Amino acid sequence: MESDLEKLINIMAKLPGLGKRSAKRAVLYMLKNKESYMEQLADSIKKAAETTKICEECGNLDTSSPCDICTDEKREPIICVVEEVADLWAFERGNVFGGKYHVLGGVLSAVDGVGPADLNIDKLLERIEKENTEEVVIATNATVEGQTTAHYITERLKDLGVKTSRIAHGIPIGGEMDYLDDGTLSAALKSRQSF
Amino acid sequence: MESDLEKLINIMAKLPGLGKRSAKRAVLYMLKNKESYMEQLADSIKKAAETTKICEECGNLDTSSPCDICTDEKREPIICVVEEVADLWAFERGNVFGGKYHVLGGVLSAVDGVGPADLNIDKLLERIEKENTEEVVIATNATVEGQTTAHYITERLKDLGVKTSRIAHGIPIGGEMDYLDDGTLSAALKSRQSF
Repeated sequence: MESDLEKLINIMAKLPGLGKRSAKRAVLYMLKNKESYMEQLADSIKKAAETTKICEECGNLDTSSPCDICTDEKREPIICVVEEVADLWAFERGNVFGGKYHVLGGVLSAVDGVGPADLNIDKLLERIEKENTEEVVIATNATVEGQTTAHYITERLKDLGVKTSRIAHGIPIGGEMDYLDDGTLSAALKSRQSF
Repeated sequence: MESDLEKLINIMAKLPGLGKRSAKRAVLYMLKNKESYMEQLADSIKKAAETTKICEECGNLDTSSPCDICTDEKREPIICVVEEVADLWAFERGNVFGGKYHVLGGVLSAVDGVGPADLNIDKLLERIEKENTEEVVIATNATVEGQTTAHYITERLKDLGVKTSRIAHGIPIGGEMDYLDDGTLSAALKSRQSF
């Protein structure tokens, strides 16, 4: 194996979801399709790096800042708070939410040394006042860190008088009880609703 | 989501082992580390594309052609025939083989329309004569296509008078019988050796 190749494999291996072995396979695929694929990929990475901006309002990735969602006048004055841009994309893909978003850029984590100042929280408070937000839906992940972060944000929002809600936890649609963990079952029971 | 971004995600999703969702995660990782990672990745891809050559002798990837292995005079006159460059790397990583290699670039497959002419076989015959090869070890994968290819190559080598062998199939070291499939058990039994 050779140094430029090895270097590329090591860089590729840093991507989430790829290890050393899958990075190797990916690099071999690239080299097998040098003409049709490899140059295109390198150019596309450069182009995306040049044109993509982080929206100064919500933290979304777009070609413009503020992003298309923030400047969309038809969106309801509800802000959905998510951990990462990928979560925002998940909501948009499903076309299940008509409001705006706010990307935290992570979660509070003592282990990883992520404190409130590292997250995009101050901007959220600022936006709520400026945009006359009616409701804040907190949609952090159902992990310990996600829950902690949700709790922290709720506390910060208390004095603003804005309605705050938390996305529901429960049995996924199509999910079978038998295969679900105790935590989900317990959460689903606690949040039961009367017919 | 935006067009340059979407384009990059679609290109990344073509890599083996990555789907649309993992490509998205990979691209988000890139953008989060734009300065420290993204440019480096693009440059590294370009550089690898420029400097990497396919060895005209064995099909290996290296900066030179013939490659370092083919020009290494200390290697034994044994050729190990493998499907892909990754297989060659696996042998070299393990440091378990002191001969040379020959990369077929695939396997015979009626389904995928891969015939003998699509594989690097003629060059193998040529090398055996030219390099006074003493033995050819066929190390294609233990799949139907791999076995078919091994059989085909053995037939082609018959008239050359070169010793031909097949890498052994059996129980992997550390493997537990109970967890192995019937095919492996049967192959391991058939190839049993007396003490």
